[in-house]
Amino acid sequence: MNREFKREEHVYTSDAFDEIIKDTIRFFNGTPVIKLPPPVKFHGTGVYAIYFIGKGNLYADLALKNRIEFSMPIYVGKAVPRGWRQARNETHSSNKTFELNGRLNEHTRSIEQADNLIIEDFYCRFMILEDAASSLISTVEAALIRHYKPIWNSQIDGFGNHDPGKGRYNQAKSEWDVLHPGRPWAEKCSGIAPDINRVEEKAAVYFTKQKSK
Amino acid sequence: MNREFKREEHVYTSDAFDEIIKDTIRFFNGTPVIKLPPPVKFHGTGVYAIYFIGKGNLYADLALKNRIEFSMPIYVGKAVPRGWRQARNETHSSNKTFELNGRLNEHTRSIEQADNLIIEDFYCRFMILEDAASSLISTVEAALIRHYKPIWNSQIDGFGNHDPGKGRYNQAKSEWDVLHPGRPWAEKCSGIAPDINRVEEKAAVYFTKQKSK
Repeated sequence: MNREFKREEHVYTSDAFDEIIKDTIRFFNGTPVIKLPPPVKFHGTGVYAIYFIGKGNLYADLALKNRIEFSMPIYVGKAVPRGWRQARNETHSSNKTFELNGRLNEHTRSIEQADNLIIEDFYCRFMILEDAASSLISTVEAALIRHYKPIWNSQIDGFGNHDPGKGRYNQAKSEWDVLHPGRPWAEKCSGIAPDINRVEEKAAVYFTKQKSK
Repeated sequence: MNREFKREEHVYTSDAFDEIIKDTIRFFNGTPVIKLPPPVKFHGTGVYAIYFIGKGNLYADLALKNRIEFSMPIYVGKAVPRGWRQARNETHSSNKTFELNGRLNEHTRSIEQADNLIIEDFYCRFMILEDAASSLISTVEAALIRHYKPIWNSQIDGFGNHDPGKGRYNQAKSEWDVLHPGRPWAEKCSGIAPDINRVEEKAAVYFTKQKSK
């Protein structure tokens, strides 16, 4: 047990893996884009992207990028199997669950509740990853976020947040909720909220960076 | 935009991916096992497993399984790049960070602070996943947890918890902290803690299930 410690003995590398991630992203970018919310209830877990094509001031650059194709998501997220982190869902294949569908519906509600967003400006694309492939979910989500750096993932925090629940409303409103007020539970958050001017400034910085690429 | 919704257009499958996960796990299981804490400071992110070889009553079955090889971890975890979820770590390769090393040191502290555990009974194994391979971290961690179902992941919650911090000590002590009292911040948690008999019962159920396999 007292052999010498050699860092390199612990380092894993795989070229084949890079290829697979590219393959999933290519598949993802080939899935049909649909309006939010999904038109029918469907089961499964996976990864999704939300696109904005509105003419709003703040996201004008984004709408421009998406003018002729859905090329820049405003948000990327995942829906993992229930109990997945704890390895508790041994019976997952027998009961159909609706995580991805549910997540897209939650996001629809957030957008509808925001005073200054309308659901008609939002579209989504999603990829179902089930059974063995469900362990790809986090990897693909991370790769998509790293690749696109969507503004609601990388710059404006809070879109994907949930109601913190009773006894926890002492926390601060998120940047997203400052920018898009309206979610009833967010309005209950009594902590010191980020300054709206600073949040708008952050959004502007994001688009400046994007342009310089 | 009003084409028919077809679920199957959204489902991704990949056999090559299953092979890669098996390859990473095989590599992981071939990495050297070392005592906790790591003997030298090393940089990087990745996945780790902690093994228990003590003679304690509660985990006697585990020690038995690990008598001639490290075959059943008590806990599996990951250390991801800082800012990884938000895609903010653009400069990650230039600054060396020590997430994995830090996580193993935190766990060492938790074990040392527990009244009824001793660090000499604990070993670990870890795999560094960096650069592109860092997006494999969550997938490999999940696969290892699903495969081994370590008791501190799947049955007894709370080992990996952090100090909730000022203003949040109204939450309950975790199952792990009930079973292994001693972490100073856990002792401050004033919520209704799980009953120790019930937690011990849960541990017993875990080992019964393991045996029946």
